[in-house]
This record gives sequence, C-alpha cells and structure tokens, in this order.
Amino acid sequence: MTAELLARVKDFAATELAGKDGHFDGLPEQPTVEAARLHDLGLANWWVPRQYGGLGLSVTDSVDVVSELAYGDAGFAFGSFLPVLGGVMLQHFGGEELARPVLRSLVTEGGRIAVLGSEEEAGSELVRITTTFRAEGDRLLLSGDKYFSTNTDAAGLLLVLARSAEDAADFAVIAVPRDTPGVEIVERWDLLGVRGAGTYRVRLADCAVPATHRLQGSGLRILEASLNASRILIAACAVGIARRVRDLAMDYAAGKRLRGAPLTENAVFAAKLGQMETLIDVMRNQCRAAAAEFDALLDTAAAGGTGLHRAGTLRSALAAKLFCGQAGWEVVSTGSELFGGLGYTQDHPIGKLVRDMRYVAIVEGGEDIMRDLVYARYVVPARKRR
Amino acid sequence: MTAELLARVKDFAATELAGKDGHFDGLPEQPTVEAARLHDLGLANWWVPRQYGGLGLSVTDSVDVVSELAYGDAGFAFGSFLPVLGGVMLQHFGGEELARPVLRSLVTEGGRIAVLGSEEEAGSELVRITTTFRAEGDRLLLSGDKYFSTNTDAAGLLLVLARSAEDAADFAVIAVPRDTPGVEIVERWDLLGVRGAGTYRVRLADCAVPATHRLQGSGLRILEASLNASRILIAACAVGIARRVRDLAMDYAAGKRLRGAPLTENAVFAAKLGQMETLIDVMRNQCRAAAAEFDALLDTAAAGGTGLHRAGTLRSALAAKLFCGQAGWEVVSTGSELFGGLGYTQDHPIGKLVRDMRYVAIVEGGEDIMRDLVYARYVVPARKRR
Amino acid sequence: MTAELLARVKDFAATELAGKDGHFDGLPEQPTVEAARLHDLGLANWWVPRQYGGLGLSVTDSVDVVSELAYGDAGFAFGSFLPVLGGVMLQHFGGEELARPVLRSLVTEGGRIAVLGSEEEAGSELVRITTTFRAEGDRLLLSGDKYFSTNTDAAGLLLVLARSAEDAADFAVIAVPRDTPGVEIVERWDLLGVRGAGTYRVRLADCAVPATHRLQGSGLRILEASLNASRILIAACAVGIARRVRDLAMDYAAGKRLRGAPLTENAVFAAKLGQMETLIDVMRNQCRAAAAEFDALLDTAAAGGTGLHRAGTLRSALAAKLFCGQAGWEVVSTGSELFGGLGYTQDHPIGKLVRDMRYVAIVEGGEDIMRDLVYARYVVPARKRR
Amino acid sequence: MTAELLARVKDFAATELAGKDGHFDGLPEQPTVEAARLHDLGLANWWVPRQYGGLGLSVTDSVDVVSELAYGDAGFAFGSFLPVLGGVMLQHFGGEELARPVLRSLVTEGGRIAVLGSEEEAGSELVRITTTFRAEGDRLLLSGDKYFSTNTDAAGLLLVLARSAEDAADFAVIAVPRDTPGVEIVERWDLLGVRGAGTYRVRLADCAVPATHRLQGSGLRILEASLNASRILIAACAVGIARRVRDLAMDYAAGKRLRGAPLTENAVFAAKLGQMETLIDVMRNQCRAAAAEFDALLDTAAAGGTGLHRAGTLRSALAAKLFCGQAGWEVVSTGSELFGGLGYTQDHPIGKLVRDMRYVAIVEGGEDIMRDLVYARYVVPARKRR
Repeated sequence: MTAELLARVKDFAATELAGKDGHFDGLPEQPTVEAARLHDLGLANWWVPRQYGGLGLSVTDSVDVVSELAYGDAGFAFGSFLPVLGGVMLQHFGGEELARPVLRSLVTEGGRIAVLGSEEEAGSELVRITTTFRAEGDRLLLSGDKYFSTNTDAAGLLLVLARSAEDAADFAVIAVPRDTPGVEIVERWDLLGVRGAGTYRVRLADCAVPATHRLQGSGLRILEASLNASRILIAACAVGIARRVRDLAMDYAAGKRLRGAPLTENAVFAAKLGQMETLIDVMRNQCRAAAAEFDALLDTAAAGGTGLHRAGTLRSALAAKLFCGQAGWEVVSTGSELFGGLGYTQDHPIGKLVRDMRYVAIVEGGEDIMRDLVYARYVVPARKRR
Repeated sequence: MTAELLARVKDFAATELAGKDGHFDGLPEQPTVEAARLHDLGLANWWVPRQYGGLGLSVTDSVDVVSELAYGDAGFAFGSFLPVLGGVMLQHFGGEELARPVLRSLVTEGGRIAVLGSEEEAGSELVRITTTFRAEGDRLLLSGDKYFSTNTDAAGLLLVLARSAEDAADFAVIAVPRDTPGVEIVERWDLLGVRGAGTYRVRLADCAVPATHRLQGSGLRILEASLNASRILIAACAVGIARRVRDLAMDYAAGKRLRGAPLTENAVFAAKLGQMETLIDVMRNQCRAAAAEFDALLDTAAAGGTGLHRAGTLRSALAAKLFCGQAGWEVVSTGSELFGGLGYTQDHPIGKLVRDMRYVAIVEGGEDIMRDLVYARYVVPARKRR
Repeated sequence: MTAELLARVKDFAATELAGKDGHFDGLPEQPTVEAARLHDLGLANWWVPRQYGGLGLSVTDSVDVVSELAYGDAGFAFGSFLPVLGGVMLQHFGGEELARPVLRSLVTEGGRIAVLGSEEEAGSELVRITTTFRAEGDRLLLSGDKYFSTNTDAAGLLLVLARSAEDAADFAVIAVPRDTPGVEIVERWDLLGVRGAGTYRVRLADCAVPATHRLQGSGLRILEASLNASRILIAACAVGIARRVRDLAMDYAAGKRLRGAPLTENAVFAAKLGQMETLIDVMRNQCRAAAAEFDALLDTAAAGGTGLHRAGTLRSALAAKLFCGQAGWEVVSTGSELFGGLGYTQDHPIGKLVRDMRYVAIVEGGEDIMRDLVYARYVVPARKRR
Repeated sequence: MTAELLARVKDFAATELAGKDGHFDGLPEQPTVEAARLHDLGLANWWVPRQYGGLGLSVTDSVDVVSELAYGDAGFAFGSFLPVLGGVMLQHFGGEELARPVLRSLVTEGGRIAVLGSEEEAGSELVRITTTFRAEGDRLLLSGDKYFSTNTDAAGLLLVLARSAEDAADFAVIAVPRDTPGVEIVERWDLLGVRGAGTYRVRLADCAVPATHRLQGSGLRILEASLNASRILIAACAVGIARRVRDLAMDYAAGKRLRGAPLTENAVFAAKLGQMETLIDVMRNQCRAAAAEFDALLDTAAAGGTGLHRAGTLRSALAAKLFCGQAGWEVVSTGSELFGGLGYTQDHPIGKLVRDMRYVAIVEGGEDIMRDLVYARYVVPARKRR
C-alpha cells in the first residue's frame, strides 16, 4: 500500500471521526454522513479489486486501514470493513456475472453488502439454522429470521445463508437484493458498543431471486473460508481501539501530577503503558501475519487454485480474533482504571472504548468457539501442527 | 445478625429492586422511592447503634446486607451504605452531642449523611486538598470545591474534609448541615455505573458552622480510620454483583442448548461457573474477615480504647477492596462473554453489571493506591508482617 | 490457640527448618530428625484432641501452625499435617476402640498415619479404584496398588480406601497396620517439590486385618468429608510459602539499588509486593473461614450430630484449595522474576519455592476437579447458593 | 530458507536431542557431543553469512531453526544461537579484518563466540559496569569481573563490554581471544534451567589484546543494536518449548480417559489446548515480524546504511521477548497441571520445561526492563507511535 493512501485514511479519521464519540455512540442513522464522506473521498472501497474500479488493497493493507478507522470509531470501522466479507464471497464464489455489477456499484454509487448468517436458536452452531430456500422454476424462495446482521438496512445486496427445504444437508449462500419483496427489517439492535454501525434483526418472507443468485459451493464452506477476512479485520479494530486508549492515557498523564512529578515519569504508569504498547505491537503483527496468509490464499484462488476452498478457517485468523479480543480486553481493563474518577464519567471516552472493545471477543464466534475451532482443526490432527 | 433480618433485606431486594435495572441505570431522582421504602420498612438504618434507635448491626453483618442490596442494584446499595462512613466518623470522633441528633434523625426522619473528601486537583492525594476552614469567633467558615461526593444533595449533614487556612498541616473534618448558606450542588455526575446513587460536585462558599462542629482529631486520621468501613462495604457490593452474574448465567444456561445438550451440562461452562463461585466465596470471606477486624476495633473504641485512632487503615480492608475489585472484574469479564450476542445488547443486564463492578476498583482509592498503602503500611515495616 | 503455642511453632521453624532448603529438597530420609524434634518438643500432635493427650488445636488454629511450618519447608509441613486427615477419619468414623490407641500412640511414641486413596488408572475418579477387600471369617483381606501416598513408610497405621470384591458399589476405609504382612513400599516418588516429605507407591497383597478395622460408613463419603481438613491445610501451606517469598523479596531489596535508589523505594517493586501481601491476606482469611466452618461441623459431629456425614465436601474448603493454588502461583510467578539472574540459580531458594507451590494446585484434586466439584455441588443446586 | 534445511534441523532435533532431557538437564560438559554433531552436519553455522562459508540464513529463518532446536532442548538451543549475537557485533561493528577469521573459523573448526556484558553490581544497568580497559602502547588491557556469560569456556573469542579507565563515558566492546592470559573461568553457574548450555562467571585480569580489537563505535550502542538478534531468538526458544508442551499434552491425552471418554474429547482439555495453540501462533508471528524488521535493518547496514546504528533497540524485538516470556509462562503454567500426579514427578519432562521457560523472561533484561524500554523509547516520544 502506498503510505500516501494510509495517510489519507488517517487524515480522514482525524478530520471526520475524531471528537465525535457521542455522535457515534448515539446509534446514528445509517448510512452515516461520515460513510458518505468516506465514499466521496474515494476511500470507502479501498478493498475492491482494481478491475472493478476500487483501490485494490490487500487484506494485509486493510489491517492498517481498519486500525486507523477504529482509532476514530470502532463502530464506523466495523460498518466500513464488513462489506469485505461479502466481497470475498462474491468474488471467489459468486462468479463474474454476479460479482461485477455489485462491486462496480459499490465504487460508483457507494453502499454496502450485508451478510446474514446468525439466527436466534442456532447461536454459534450454523449447522442448526432454519432459514430455508426452495426452488420454484428458475427462482429460489427464501424464508426465515436472521438475528444479528450489520449494514442490512443500508445495503444494496444481502448474502443470506440458508438450507434447502428439501435437503437439510444442503446449505447455500444466496444473493438477495435489499429491495426484494419480503425483506423486512424487524428492528435495529440497541447494542452495547460499536453503535456507530447499524445491526439488525431481519425477516425474509418468501423472497424470490433468480436461481443464478446462489453462490457456488457449500454455503457453510463459503462462509467458513470468507470469515477469515472479517475475523482478521475485527481483530484489527482491537488494535485501533487499543492505540486510542494508549494515546488518551499519554494525553492525560501529560497534564497530571502524582507526588510532585508528572505522571508520565511515574514508574508504575510507565510499566502499564509499556505493557500496553507491547500488546499493541503483538496484536498488529498477528493481524498482519494472518492477513498475509489469507492474501496468499486469495491470490492462488484468483489464479485458479483451490486453496481457498480447501483451507477453510485459518489458524492464524482464529488466533488473531481470539488473541486480540483477549489482549484488547487487557488494554481497556487497564485503561478503565487509569483516568481516576473522571474516567468513570460519561465525560471521558474510555467507557465507550471498553464497550466497543468487548465486541471483538463476541462477534463472529466467541472465545470458546475460537478455542474449539483451533483445537479441532489444528491441534488434534497432528499433521497440521508446526 | 438474626437470619430473620437478612431475610427481610433479601425480600426487600427481590420485591423493590429486582427487575428495575433500567430505572436505576437512568440516574433516578434522589432520594429514590426505593430508599424511602427501605426506611419505611425500618431497614435503612440497619447499622445505626441501638442506643439511637437503629438495628445496631455490625460491619460484619453489614457485609451480607450490602451484598443483598447490591444483588438488586449496586448504585442503590452504594447510596444506602455510604452513610455508614459518616456514621463511624460521627460516633467515634464527633462526640455524643454532635452524633446523637444526627443518628437519631436518620432513624426517625430518614435521610443520609454525606462525606466530602476528594477534590479535582488533589486526586487521591488528600494531603493536597485546598478546601479551607478558618475560625471567626466561635464559628468556622469553609470554602472550596469538592469533586465526587455521594448522597450530598439528599443528605441532611455533610462531613467535610478541609485544612486550616492558617496552618496547612492542620486538617479537620467539619459537620456542615446541608441547608447551610453557601452549600451549592454544582452538578450531578453522569457516572458510567452505580447510577442508582447520586454523586455530585459541590461548592462551599464561606459556609459558617459552630466551632463545635469540628470532629475531634486530625481530619486525615479520622478519614483514614473511618474509610475502613466504606472500603469493606464497597467490596461487599462486588460480592452482590458477582452473585447476580452467576445467577443470570445459570438462568440463561437453563434455557440454552449447545451441541444437543443443555448448557448447564457443558464442561467449559461448568468450569467458568465453578471459578466464579469460588471467587464469590473468597471475596465474601475476605469482606467478613476485614469487617470482623474492624468491628473489634470499634468495640474497643466504644469501650474507650484508642485502637481506632492508632490502627489507621487496616490491611484486611485494603485487601478486601483491592481483591474484590480484581476478582469482581474477572467475574464480570467472564460474564460479559457468556450470553452470546444477546449479552451485547441493552436488553440484557450484564452490560450494566460490568459498569457497576468497575466502580469497586476506582472509588475511594484505585488499585495502585491500595497496593501502595498495603506496601507502605504492612510490608515495609517488618514487624507488622505475619 | 494461645499465641504462646504459635510462637513456639514459629520458633521451631526458625531454629530447626530455616536455612535447610538444600536438606529438605534432597529427599531426606523419613522420618526426618526435624520431625522427631517436633515430637520431642511436644508440638507434633498439635491437632490431636486433648482426651488423647494432644494439644487439641482446631483446624482453624492449624491454619497458622501449618503456615509457619511451610514458611520453613513446605514438604516438612505437608508431612506433618497430613496425619490430620487420618485423624479426622479415625475420630469421626473409626469408633473409640480403633481411634484411641492410634491417637494415643501418636502422642506418646510419635509417628504418622497415612491415607491410601489414589490409584494409577483411577486418577481423580476414586469411584474407579480397583483395590479390593474381601471378608474371610472375621478378617478382611486387602489387595491392590496405591499410587501416591505420603508418610506411608514411616506411618504406624495406613487407612486404605478399597471396594468390596463382592459388591463394586461398597467402598470402605480400612485401617491396616504398617507392619501387616503384604504391605510393600514399591518406590518413593521423586517428586518435583515438597521433597521434605516422603511419598510412595504401595502394594497391598492379601493384607489381613480384623473386620473391626473397617471404618463406619461409605468409604467415599468418609474420604470426602475428611478431605476438607487436608485441603484446607494444603491451602495453608500456600500461605506459608507466599510469606517466605515476600520476606525473601524484602531482604533482597534491602541490599539492592536501582537507578540510584534502594529497590525498596521503587514504585514497581512496591506494587508487586503490595499485590503479594494482599493475596497473602486473602489466602489466609479464606483458609481460616473454611477451617472455622469445618471446625463447627466437627463440633456438631463430636456432639453426636450428623452434619459431617451430610456435609460432604465444603464449598469453602474447595475454594480455599483452588484459590490458594492460583494466588500462590501468582505469588511465586512474580517472585521467580524478582531476584534477577541470581534468582535463576540454585544458590537462591526461589526455584524450590516455585516447585513446592505447584503442589498446592495438584494434590488431592487439580484445579479442574475443584471447579467441577464447586459447580456440581454448589452452583447447580440453586438452593445451596447464597 | 529452503524447507529442506529446516527439515534437516528438525531431523537433527528428533535424532540427537529428543529423549535426552535428563542428559541436558544434568549440566553436560561443554561443548556437548550434540553441538559437535550439529557442526559435523554443517548446520551449526546456519546463520553465518555465505561469504564466510555459512548457510547464510536470516534472523527470520533462524526463528524456526531455534524453535526446532528448543523443541529438543532449550539449553542446547540457547548455546547454539547465542553466537549470533557476537556474529552481528563482529560483522557490523568489527570490520572485515576482525570478523572474517572468526566467522570463517566457526565454519571450518566449529566453536562459539561469547559475549560478556553483565556484572554483579550493575545488574541490568549496563551503564554502571566496572570492567575497564586502558590503552598501553598499541595494546588494550582489560580487567574486571563478569557475572553471567554463556559459552565462554568453549568459545574461541570473547566480546567484552568495558569502559575506559580514563573516560568513564567511553564504553567499548573489545574482542578477547579465549586463550589470552588473564582470562579465568571462576565458576560455572548451576542455573535452574537451560542447563544444556554452559554459563559462567569470568574474571579478566590485565588481559592484553591489540588496540585493533576494539569494535567501532560506542560499546553500549553496539550492544543495544545487536541484542535485538538474541532477544528475538530467546523469544523463539519459548515457541519451541511451548510446542513441546502441547505435543506432550496431546500424547498424554491420547492414552488417558476421563469419565469414560478419551481426554482428547474433553471440552475443558480442548479449551486449554486451543488457547495454547493460539498463543504459539501469536508468539511465532511476533518473533517473525521482529526478525523481519531486524533483517531489513541488517540489509541496509550491509549496504552501507546507518540504520542499525540509529535504530537501537527495536520495539518489535522488545515486544517479542516480553510477550513470549509472558505467553510462554502461561503455557507452561497450564502444562504443569495437565499431567496429574505424574506431571509432578521427575519422570515427566514438564518440570524441566517450566524451568527452561522461566529463562526467557529473565535473560537479557527482565520484564520490568522490557516494559520500561518500550515505554521510554516508543510511547513517550509520540512521533514513534503508530
């Protein structure tokens, strides 16, 4: 990535996101004016391949982009990068005919792609979802309730995980235009954090789409392979939030005296910040390593390889999400005690940052699920150990 | 304590506090109707000595009372027990003439006592406060700004830490009736948690009180000795919040299945709850041990001993506050991931419980200060080690 | 307990145990001369009831005794207090005829009682043990292999957990004199720590004892109820080791300078020691609380109550062992980094203290088992929650 | 690195190191036969540049080499990679004339380079060392006592940090052949772990070397820049030890049943191993990222750049050592409880692995020092934050 591009993103965050904690924390209407502005600046589609008019940044480059956006506001970052998940699905499993117009339109018109996976009963066990699709002529009809889905209301396209009404073992991802009759936003979730994004409960009632809207291959496999992208970038959010906590701490310390000396010279404070900075460095390097591994897979896939299909969920991506959730929580836990009484008031952003950070560990599979996947995929089969 | 009394408190919490998370989290007007109800039931002054008409429960007994109230709402508990701090001050340093009418009135009329110590600049270093008092005839005049003070608005009496305008080394605690001219509530803090209580910024402008309103002895020593009571009961709040998290977890698990079995039978869930219950047991025992030590001191003081003066801050009380803050945070950190996506919404109380718990570590001296006090008072002087 | 008695124990530790880390770490021959000395001083049987000539200290008092002994050497402490486990069994389930001569002899002659529970295959699941007993006339014959058993070689009496050869559901604890033909010490374990004690693999080959040697009631219930005593005292060992680490740290810091100032004045060092002291306080209070609860049970049992039988494993005792193992590990982990390079050599006792501390978490049920028991016994059955 | 080369290292570890825990833990004579074998196989000098006949692997490649060696034995790994530190010094600050014969000889003859920095009084504050050098004609004379120095006895060349006897602000690194009169091995340290390496106290008494043996530039700067290499590879040792713990755990679980099912299917066990594997992945990626950064610096330095001089200690290298010490300790702490009673005996290698792992956090600057350096160099000067 040209450093110049990252500098522009950083500049955008400083200009358009900084100082708006209250705004973003207030469940702002979607799409936000800041999202529109990011698009106007030509930065919203940093990840869209050049052949569709995007900036073509890799996932590795996206780690730093997302960290900068999340430094500004984690919810904004989340809403901004989540289309990457749908983008990977479309590009690698959708076929050119389905993918091109959508990705082109993101660049020209703006907008979002949403992915609808989770359901209330199924929880983390996607194999238990009950949203179904059935063929009717050359159309597919989808019905079901989806639980947590981000960007859905403002998106042009929804990618829905469903199972065949005829064959419970047949899972599909199906592209459903947002304006398809039967798509209903039931409610916007009043989440604890990342409130700059919009997350929804959605109902699908006999939504009809052309049969060609089914992405190629098993829906569960598509989701599994593509989630690598979003899990890595969720982890990158933790980097941005943690950097913000560090800088707030240094700003605070610059104006605070303890026992007659500036807080910045206090050894216990220094130890906390040294630990924080260390964790930030480790978190970022894990995100980058996972992203580099995933980028390599995408490259071979683009070149006709089958790596992406076969790879499934990457250890490094699981580790990035799990570890950054844990290390990020350590950072905000320390941070939430650093600012004295003032840090326990709404006047200080640390309360919001704690809530935002919590999302990293929860979304797209909690800690228990991450550990379980790592164990089942990478510890048990000894040949995969290194 | 008669088990019967504790059962009444428990019953009160179940009847009057349970199910009102939103109400208490919404900065309810002070005093709350629930506080009035507690007084009407004759329970509000559980800790007031029998000679003044109270129920005369010890601090040890108060640990369980506070745990039950905090199970209902931590902010309500905090506002309810904090008068204990002022009560200890009045009883042991105020002299009968000053103490009796105030404590009697708590029983007959209800109301609160507030303590005003912290200031913006001084932070945790009370030796740096700038609120002053000066003698003028047989009156004392107080002036200064106080930062965080709970119950102040609804209190009948304020106990103010101030230093002599003439002698910077002379600190005093002075009783100032709430309706003294010059007492101004600057603002109510919009705290992150314990929002069921009212916490204020207060300005004192030439508030005049009789010279007899000065409590006997050094103000810093009075505060130090008395803070043992409130630190122990703050720690007891953590026990109540943690118990609530545990019960919410069990209720959730009862209705949730994972891999075809009830979550209650899942080994990883069991391990988390086993750890949680263990910490609850240890937290409670530490609170009780510290309280028993402090009660013994109060007893010798009541019998004319000088133990309370000499004791200063107790190791066990410091350890209770520090440890319960840490263990409590471990409990809510685990809890905040237990409830899946729903636990990340405002529909679930866990978000509030995380915020409430954070207060335990922050109020009346953060973790760094607790560690420092333990070290300086109990590790360095080897003769105090055991 | 008279403070005088505890002072004698402390004096014993200072005189007979201090400075002998190498000796105790070298698998000294059992019984050690120090054990003989403790008996000569009349202190070895501090816990034996007065009616048998002992000092009659409660388990609560024993917490401090064990802490002092473990301050000197954890292995010595472990070997010294473990007979308490057998003593509780004999006294409360053995009947006066079986108990009296054994407990009397401990006082007059010295010696130990050993308990043989664990087996190689069964691990922590005692219900899977394969050591059997069968009746032959008025005798019982025992056969089987026992895995980890402390004090066995030097003990006069072995209390063996076995199951009926005829009825696999019938478990018994049977008293087997050490000199019974067929008792064979297979090997002494070369443990990582607590090497001042002797722990053995033992084989029983058709060991015949009078049928009256069977203790009354289910063997599993007897063990469960009695293990409360040893688990609490194991936890008390952690207190003693932790106190030793603290004092070594302070001694080291007294002679060490960092950046031109004594290490004792370094804020980061102070924070570590403040945390350590806090944990020591909490650990000790948990041990005492659990012990007080168990003592109350023993008192009701001695008075003819059935509480001991019914109680089974106490939450507070499980919590004491689990928590002290965890907090103790935190203390030695910190300690093992405190002494610079020298602390990484055999010239410094910290290496031994780390190894000794590890035992607390492992012996008589690891952390997973403790959490599981707490969950199954005290979280699931809501009526037991408090 | 060709995968083939790494496979050879792995094969060496499996053939020559595996199963020899007792041997390496027994302070084997230096150089060990295994070290000779590694040299015979042409692998010992994997890191020596190709122009001197070595295999020319980068530090990044060395991370995996060291991880494999440490999987076999951490002490062996430590002794094997530590010459990299001296190698970097010689190559980048020694000048071709000094460096060539030494590095050539490592390849042709074998042997080691030792670095002598630490002293008893100075501890981690190298600025306080008292070993001096003084010029006498065209010779330099060195005198002083060095505290912890690995490989010294078996090394051909010693690189000694000393300060000018005339100018206390002038620090130098001076190359002293091992056979220089006045070099005395005072004792071999009886370390707690990494006992497969040889670490010594050394005395230098008027050791005379040609003035050309002084490396170019400030000794403290040379050491600081070069320590990046060894700190990264120390961190890589933690990866190898952690991988060994994981594999031991899986081997153990394969043969162990809990509640009627294989331990490998137990959810709590799976969670522990999933966490362990995650940490291994993160540790390794941090080592690689730091190594890649350092390799880039070395490349620019080799091309005549001044980056190495200016860079000083790298954040990523500090973070690698600090984090891998912490995460490694988490892994062995978990591991040390995984193997039941057997894991607490000398029959099981976990005890040794705990001791070996401890070294990572201690050697070349403890955790406090790492945090302090990260803070002072990378947090305080805001322009270096990212």
